[in-house]
Amino acid sequence: MRNFDLLSPADALAKLMAALDAAQTRMPAESVSVKTAYRRMLARDVTSPIALPEFRRSTVDGYAVRAGSTPGVLRVIGEVQMGELSNLRVKLGDAALVHTGGNIPEGADAVVMVEQIKSLDQSTWGKIQTQAQVSPGENVIQEGEDVRPGDVVMRAGALLREQEIGGLLSLGITQVDVTRKPRVVLIASGDEVVPADSPTRPGQVRNINTPMLSAMLTRHGADVLDYGILPDMRAAFEDAAQRAMREADMTIFMAGSSVSERDFTPDVVNAMGRPGILVHGIAFRPGKPTLFAVCDSKPVFGLPGNPISVLVTATMFALPALYRLQGSTMPRPNLVGAILSSDVKSPRDLEHWFPVALSEDRPAAAAGMPTAEPITTKSNLIFGLVRAAGLVCAPIGVDRLTAGSVVDVRLME
Amino acid sequence: MRNFDLLSPADALAKLMAALDAAQTRMPAESVSVKTAYRRMLARDVTSPIALPEFRRSTVDGYAVRAGSTPGVLRVIGEVQMGELSNLRVKLGDAALVHTGGNIPEGADAVVMVEQIKSLDQSTWGKIQTQAQVSPGENVIQEGEDVRPGDVVMRAGALLREQEIGGLLSLGITQVDVTRKPRVVLIASGDEVVPADSPTRPGQVRNINTPMLSAMLTRHGADVLDYGILPDMRAAFEDAAQRAMREADMTIFMAGSSVSERDFTPDVVNAMGRPGILVHGIAFRPGKPTLFAVCDSKPVFGLPGNPISVLVTATMFALPALYRLQGSTMPRPNLVGAILSSDVKSPRDLEHWFPVALSEDRPAAAAGMPTAEPITTKSNLIFGLVRAAGLVCAPIGVDRLTAGSVVDVRLME
Repeated sequence: MRNFDLLSPADALAKLMAALDAAQTRMPAESVSVKTAYRRMLARDVTSPIALPEFRRSTVDGYAVRAGSTPGVLRVIGEVQMGELSNLRVKLGDAALVHTGGNIPEGADAVVMVEQIKSLDQSTWGKIQTQAQVSPGENVIQEGEDVRPGDVVMRAGALLREQEIGGLLSLGITQVDVTRKPRVVLIASGDEVVPADSPTRPGQVRNINTPMLSAMLTRHGADVLDYGILPDMRAAFEDAAQRAMREADMTIFMAGSSVSERDFTPDVVNAMGRPGILVHGIAFRPGKPTLFAVCDSKPVFGLPGNPISVLVTATMFALPALYRLQGSTMPRPNLVGAILSSDVKSPRDLEHWFPVALSEDRPAAAAGMPTAEPITTKSNLIFGLVRAAGLVCAPIGVDRLTAGSVVDVRLME
Repeated sequence: MRNFDLLSPADALAKLMAALDAAQTRMPAESVSVKTAYRRMLARDVTSPIALPEFRRSTVDGYAVRAGSTPGVLRVIGEVQMGELSNLRVKLGDAALVHTGGNIPEGADAVVMVEQIKSLDQSTWGKIQTQAQVSPGENVIQEGEDVRPGDVVMRAGALLREQEIGGLLSLGITQVDVTRKPRVVLIASGDEVVPADSPTRPGQVRNINTPMLSAMLTRHGADVLDYGILPDMRAAFEDAAQRAMREADMTIFMAGSSVSERDFTPDVVNAMGRPGILVHGIAFRPGKPTLFAVCDSKPVFGLPGNPISVLVTATMFALPALYRLQGSTMPRPNLVGAILSSDVKSPRDLEHWFPVALSEDRPAAAAGMPTAEPITTKSNLIFGLVRAAGLVCAPIGVDRLTAGSVVDVRLME
């Protein structure tokens, strides 16, 4: 296929996402303990069962009063204990000692900060004086001021970060409905490929793609099923594809080196379900032969087999689909501006992502930016990414990025 | 303490880091399977035991030849099987069919791409012709070209990302020395505070700080020990502090609301070991009363008790220390440029971080940037961060950020 016939990466991804939307592909809800829900995604909106705060509280250390008693001399009638509703009753001219977060006793409508108080005698419960005038409501947070019962406090699709975990627990919610983890099948292949932890014979190579993708996908919410390494035989692929359609929510084929396998894989994918292949070939380096399909509402990917292509195409195309299956959206990539240290040639008709190392201690750092040093590897070996802090994009239409120009580095973290 | 006497956040953190460096505080190494080492940090440099590639390989589909045979007519003497070293021997005028990644047979020194070949007869092993002239080494990757035996391929302190996992496995390394997970003790307090999953009586509040920090610290490599909620009694704090010095590598006190506790906590921390408190009070909002100590080489933190302060100060100050304990450096925060939607007042003598929501569908999006909408909450309740995509900083010396200005949003992800 000629490059200028290929879809741009953005168009290819949009086509995949539109097909997933049309198929309404989304994992079902499952109820989990909030304590284990960190980094999961909400299956439904969350409505507060209670008011927050649950009672009127002071926002400062001070004395609860009627605003109309200030400025003036006040009589201390007692102290509000933390962890209890106070049974004090504050009348005009009364003051009740209250700590930050403590309950505002009945009758009081404001708090005078302790810094604005002068003691008039030595006794604990004596007379105090303030020259400050407080308004009703000052230094008080009303019951339900933050959250009222029935308020929608979180939306379906939200990623449960630290603050969502805290927010749920603060409402007394200890079980929450999240989307089930998508089951993702990984299928490697190649007669020369052996499991990464096996000894190799000369001429064999270790399968590092499955452990790398398994780690990445698990981190982003997947439950990974490893189908191992298939021989370069059509029947083996057909069996694995059928099994994946029964067991998985998403399937990723990682290509081997065999020409015949490249020839039969599209047929095998199309036989997995309707509509089948949406995109085959993207104006993208590394990963031009990437294949996207939706088969009976499930995303299926055919990724190129070399380790750099696998990692980069999975990041760009499989992760957004994985988040979509969880009813959510992939977090923004972390971009850092940097000064390119040398020219990089790029194919004009492809969107080209190349690895760079970041260095803070070069002259360009004087401009407040690190230097981005392009990493070139002839063999597409994974060590090109080991030395890399991130990837830089040369867009379609650009045939050279020049040394000294400012580029955005998409960090690989 | 008056604000202008306080250390800036950067100076305070530098002081802590310098003390940890001086104490050479770092976790010991432990050997783990590479399959479970994802997101761990290397305890030592990694040296390659082998060459990569382990044998001469083709980078294309084509015919292995002697460069001197091209251009011209070539006799096909066989095919290199994937997964084996070839026993073919290529002489002048010979060609051996080879696939991408396949072994270059003895005698050959270059590969002619299959696209540059014309078949001269119908037989499989017949004569072929090429008009291309290849140079010695063309389309060949030499043994050890990427990695030579003894090369240092990864450095101590490196975070093991997908590509490091793949890189280690590609070298046949299946066990790796990483730094042991730092044990971090979390100590909550307050007579009004109850565990987050307990029923509450009126006047009580749930402890959400421990589950939030536990989630965050675990994600960044810690092994968290939860000491529960202490009563506001000095003896309870002293016991917990002693136990933490025996069991933990790092200790975090989360303040309760009690004034007496605020008074005795510094003494309790100083009694944990030398040099003791380094910083008490930072020109930082939210979290001015934050306390840092190093006690017998172990970092100890006293964080303010309100949930927003806890999360923000832990992110800014405890996470960098946690990475340092692992012999590494905290990843760069993810910053996004945005247009501030409204004025924000800020105390001139504090570095002030406030939460913002990000909105893409406002007029400012026309400038290619989202809008950052400040979130103000009177009570510092956690829902101020639930609605937030991230935090914006008003530096020391600034008393107002104005609507329409461009700000960096530090994403909370």
